[in-house]
Amino acid sequence: MEKIRICLVGAGRAGEVHGDVYFFSVPYAKITAVFDTDISKARNLSNKYKIDEKFAFEKFEDALSFSEFDAAVITTPTFTHYQYTEMAARKKIHVFCEKPMAITLEDCDRMINVCEKEKILLQIGFMRRFDVGFAGAKKMIENGVIGEPLIVKSVGRGPGLPGKWAFDIKNSNGNLAEVNSHDFDSVRWLSGSDYKRIYAVAKNSKNPEIGKEYPLFYDNATVSATMKNEVFGMIDSVCPCDYGYDARAEVVGTKGVLFIGSLQECTTVTCTREKGMVAPQVLSWKKRFHDAYIAEDRHFIDCITQNIKPSVTGYDGKNAVAAVIAANKSVQEGMPVDL
Amino acid sequence: MEKIRICLVGAGRAGEVHGDVYFFSVPYAKITAVFDTDISKARNLSNKYKIDEKFAFEKFEDALSFSEFDAAVITTPTFTHYQYTEMAARKKIHVFCEKPMAITLEDCDRMINVCEKEKILLQIGFMRRFDVGFAGAKKMIENGVIGEPLIVKSVGRGPGLPGKWAFDIKNSNGNLAEVNSHDFDSVRWLSGSDYKRIYAVAKNSKNPEIGKEYPLFYDNATVSATMKNEVFGMIDSVCPCDYGYDARAEVVGTKGVLFIGSLQECTTVTCTREKGMVAPQVLSWKKRFHDAYIAEDRHFIDCITQNIKPSVTGYDGKNAVAAVIAANKSVQEGMPVDL
Amino acid sequence: MEKIRICLVGAGRAGEVHGDVYFFSVPYAKITAVFDTDISKARNLSNKYKIDEKFAFEKFEDALSFSEFDAAVITTPTFTHYQYTEMAARKKIHVFCEKPMAITLEDCDRMINVCEKEKILLQIGFMRRFDVGFAGAKKMIENGVIGEPLIVKSVGRGPGLPGKWAFDIKNSNGNLAEVNSHDFDSVRWLSGSDYKRIYAVAKNSKNPEIGKEYPLFYDNATVSATMKNEVFGMIDSVCPCDYGYDARAEVVGTKGVLFIGSLQECTTVTCTREKGMVAPQVLSWKKRFHDAYIAEDRHFIDCITQNIKPSVTGYDGKNAVAAVIAANKSVQEGMPVDL
Amino acid sequence: MEKIRICLVGAGRAGEVHGDVYFFSVPYAKITAVFDTDISKARNLSNKYKIDEKFAFEKFEDALSFSEFDAAVITTPTFTHYQYTEMAARKKIHVFCEKPMAITLEDCDRMINVCEKEKILLQIGFMRRFDVGFAGAKKMIENGVIGEPLIVKSVGRGPGLPGKWAFDIKNSNGNLAEVNSHDFDSVRWLSGSDYKRIYAVAKNSKNPEIGKEYPLFYDNATVSATMKNEVFGMIDSVCPCDYGYDARAEVVGTKGVLFIGSLQECTTVTCTREKGMVAPQVLSWKKRFHDAYIAEDRHFIDCITQNIKPSVTGYDGKNAVAAVIAANKSVQEGMPVDL
Repeated sequence: MEKIRICLVGAGRAGEVHGDVYFFSVPYAKITAVFDTDISKARNLSNKYKIDEKFAFEKFEDALSFSEFDAAVITTPTFTHYQYTEMAARKKIHVFCEKPMAITLEDCDRMINVCEKEKILLQIGFMRRFDVGFAGAKKMIENGVIGEPLIVKSVGRGPGLPGKWAFDIKNSNGNLAEVNSHDFDSVRWLSGSDYKRIYAVAKNSKNPEIGKEYPLFYDNATVSATMKNEVFGMIDSVCPCDYGYDARAEVVGTKGVLFIGSLQECTTVTCTREKGMVAPQVLSWKKRFHDAYIAEDRHFIDCITQNIKPSVTGYDGKNAVAAVIAANKSVQEGMPVDL
Repeated sequence: MEKIRICLVGAGRAGEVHGDVYFFSVPYAKITAVFDTDISKARNLSNKYKIDEKFAFEKFEDALSFSEFDAAVITTPTFTHYQYTEMAARKKIHVFCEKPMAITLEDCDRMINVCEKEKILLQIGFMRRFDVGFAGAKKMIENGVIGEPLIVKSVGRGPGLPGKWAFDIKNSNGNLAEVNSHDFDSVRWLSGSDYKRIYAVAKNSKNPEIGKEYPLFYDNATVSATMKNEVFGMIDSVCPCDYGYDARAEVVGTKGVLFIGSLQECTTVTCTREKGMVAPQVLSWKKRFHDAYIAEDRHFIDCITQNIKPSVTGYDGKNAVAAVIAANKSVQEGMPVDL
Repeated sequence: MEKIRICLVGAGRAGEVHGDVYFFSVPYAKITAVFDTDISKARNLSNKYKIDEKFAFEKFEDALSFSEFDAAVITTPTFTHYQYTEMAARKKIHVFCEKPMAITLEDCDRMINVCEKEKILLQIGFMRRFDVGFAGAKKMIENGVIGEPLIVKSVGRGPGLPGKWAFDIKNSNGNLAEVNSHDFDSVRWLSGSDYKRIYAVAKNSKNPEIGKEYPLFYDNATVSATMKNEVFGMIDSVCPCDYGYDARAEVVGTKGVLFIGSLQECTTVTCTREKGMVAPQVLSWKKRFHDAYIAEDRHFIDCITQNIKPSVTGYDGKNAVAAVIAANKSVQEGMPVDL
Repeated sequence: MEKIRICLVGAGRAGEVHGDVYFFSVPYAKITAVFDTDISKARNLSNKYKIDEKFAFEKFEDALSFSEFDAAVITTPTFTHYQYTEMAARKKIHVFCEKPMAITLEDCDRMINVCEKEKILLQIGFMRRFDVGFAGAKKMIENGVIGEPLIVKSVGRGPGLPGKWAFDIKNSNGNLAEVNSHDFDSVRWLSGSDYKRIYAVAKNSKNPEIGKEYPLFYDNATVSATMKNEVFGMIDSVCPCDYGYDARAEVVGTKGVLFIGSLQECTTVTCTREKGMVAPQVLSWKKRFHDAYIAEDRHFIDCITQNIKPSVTGYDGKNAVAAVIAANKSVQEGMPVDL
């Protein structure tokens, strides 16, 4: 059978995560091109994935013109997502786009529309939905294990700040977008409802130097949401989070409670008198969601080969963006914001 | 040495919890009187604690007149706390008063004032402060183990609804008072700061029949708080909570995170093919905080015998009441409320 | 009602553990005498428990002659248990005797016989049977939760070496007696059967200096047992155990498995980048079995006041001694030993 | 680069596990032939791995003659391992052989010798050594985290009986070989020493019908080992294990303790009143060691491409076989057996 040909659009951290997944763990796909405005990064990955360096590009136009691929995996900065999606779609290239989908709802709509018009698939990178724990939890909720959801809580704390471009909230929508898009999606997905109202608070506690240049920058925040079905959502955000990568969720229902995820990385525990009982914490999202990334990327390929709609759509991506925008507005106005 | 003589003011659930503690586990105290407006309850406990039934009273005046004691342990409905505290204080009887301290801030002030004026001790029943886990966490925070606190989260979910008198929020301040006073106190205590601003949402999801009579009644809620030192607080409330008694807290700091408490009751775990790995959950606050109640009541007796101020004061009680009142106001107005 | 009067026979570590329990947590008993051959220890405890120093004795005869009590709580070195039990029994004093019951089976028999003859109660100090976790496990096994037991494993690792008198195995039966009597009892109790065959190995890994004087001394050992009902037992022993006090058990049955106990002391967990996730371990048997000691001592008092047979008998004590003796013999002969 | 070509020797459960790993997760290898004496199984896997059915063989001779490959992955019944290894080695085909390596020490020696003589690589399938938990533990022990090992415990309980051919212990060495080879290897690897003496007991508790035909068949056992460096080993074996696949280890050292593995499959936990706290247990070795199998097979390919010796050798395989044989002898003789 023919392998689906992939162009990596972006050769940074996230690009390499997907690149590794496609190279090592998706037998029905192969990477055939890499694009990054920093051509040295594109070349590095082309070497890593055993592709001729001539298929490393510093303009996406060139990748589209001078190489062949069926799908684009977009991991560039958020504000470029619309542009690359449109360029790919126009060429009938399927698009996998990392979160956050875009900076504005208008861009989200344009991405959705162009993909629909061109009849290409658009999948958004909410890999948590492919995590065994999260996916199993969703199923248990649907099966009524905990009754009807009352409150959905999501913890999103990441160790490393996003790139400098993201410090200016107007460019990036801030950490609530870059770090917590996943949490906004999880609350919506697990509650089974769209956002109705959001109240959020945020502050900059650890990065005064960034604050001087970017007064709206924040490194910790909490979000209180009311969904359309009256479920309450609670999100907390810390980034940079010194102690590790902490992604957990909790759903309280009318009949029970459900805990998803753990800070503990592996089950090896030691105990000595001086240190007590010690277990390693999760330090990296790449490791924490390693298997989820594989499942996510295999799903994308399966959708292409079987011509079915991805389970995570542009509509999902847009709803998370809408919630992030409302939360940032609430932070700045000190008031709850209706969606 | 002389034992401190105790009058149980209230012989309901909470009265019996303290009664048992005093009878079984506080060698320096003895119960000498029991009062309850339901005399049969008072008599039951007098029998249980081997006291002559003539020291079971249905009027607190009679207890004060016809029996001798050094301290009153008040566990009657919240709206009576002021009254009994004043009566005891006037007779130079020390007061231990269960949470919530009172319904109004005015009552709190009057309780504080009368006890100060009469030079008697006033301790409020935030037993979590005496729990090994919570107390150890507080010490670790003070020792800088997790750096400066950024976010304090507290879960307060209780299995059993308070008495019917509490369904009317105007009488009781609702579940946020009856169930979550502890959480409001914990957030304040662990953050090391008073409340500045509170936003809360609440709904009635499981008790439509109560809702008909008491439209303001709610059985689940979330609270988003900003403390004066800019720490964020998050509380969630569910009551009645079908699955058990769930009291946990989590503190994120600049350098680390700290988890307090567990839903798991004991470490005995079974596994069978059909049921998977199963551990018993905590079902009752009496069991969960059994040792904390002992430490709390011993502390009260120690304060009396050594004439020192209790570590949990009327001021602490009043601050929790203030936060509860602000949260209820926020629920009704849909807006954040400043304190 | 009359309180049961207790004489503490032995005022060392274990004596104080029981003394504290009786003083602080057993309202139906009171300590009226303390005996220790080291009179200063006896006096210390008499002061602690608010008893006139004249009721601190350095001869047990004197305690029997010059003070009044209903029950003796024996915590002296093992080789003295028979002697004090007999002296108490002759005076119709009920006996609670710490484990190991005795050094020889003959002494065990004599203790059982004298108590039967004098019609006094004899309870042996296997407090684990009163631990919520162990007792709950026993009940679950009886209820068939895990089917029929196949293998019972017990971990017994203690931080502190017993007194110097115990280094000579001929005096003490070694650590398998002093530390692991509990494990031998647990395997027998949880398997529901007596010992048939035992194979054990032991070595001295950490205490070469003790080994010079006492060549048979060992500080770690493993035991493989076959019970009369063909259940297999496995015990491991480490003492001194540097990292804490580790007492856990595991029972595999035909249908499931059951885990008892945990090394983790409390549920407060911290996480920082440098140290990872850290929880405190159990460091002391006093803390680990604090509630079990209370339940054990209350049971003894209840048996006296209600005149019923204790649930842990001399026969149980003797069986543990028999297993220990067989295990030591196996260590020395390198062969399995039949019981 | 050229991909290493693989022939699957055996297309049963274990063959498919490795086949899946090579197909989905080892980009530097490709399966080019499948052999099984049951040709339908071979054809199934050839289809699954997109190989022309003509490369599915029912004689290994034919696979060697009519297809091309660089390495053989042997997962056939134990007693055939020597034969296929020799056939492959003679053709300069590298060999990965599942555990147990062979039934007799003579076969082990012959396998080692032929591979050495033909200068081909021989790796034995102890995948636990590639598990993040086990490998991390080994490193921690080497780094002295727990001091010098005193006792190594390994739990090996598997849900499914091996094939009927294995019921006759003379053919298979029984469950201690089929199920617990891993445990024998782990104890040796983690203790850092070879076996000196072994005592084992075994019984048939759940399979009387098998016992009628095969009186030496056992379905649960315990092993007590003394290593040459005086470390003690303890293994317990249950198969079939109704409740799941349970593979854990524990190492006690002079300074600390180390726990490896967990029965809990994932971190999603639910709690309801009726069922308590429930987590899913591990049910399958395929899932439990999914990542370890990938690492193991990638290691084999890396060794071939880089021409280095595998980290798990025929010598390791032989030592596990020796221990198993000694344990079975001990079971039958009721005595410890020296190695």
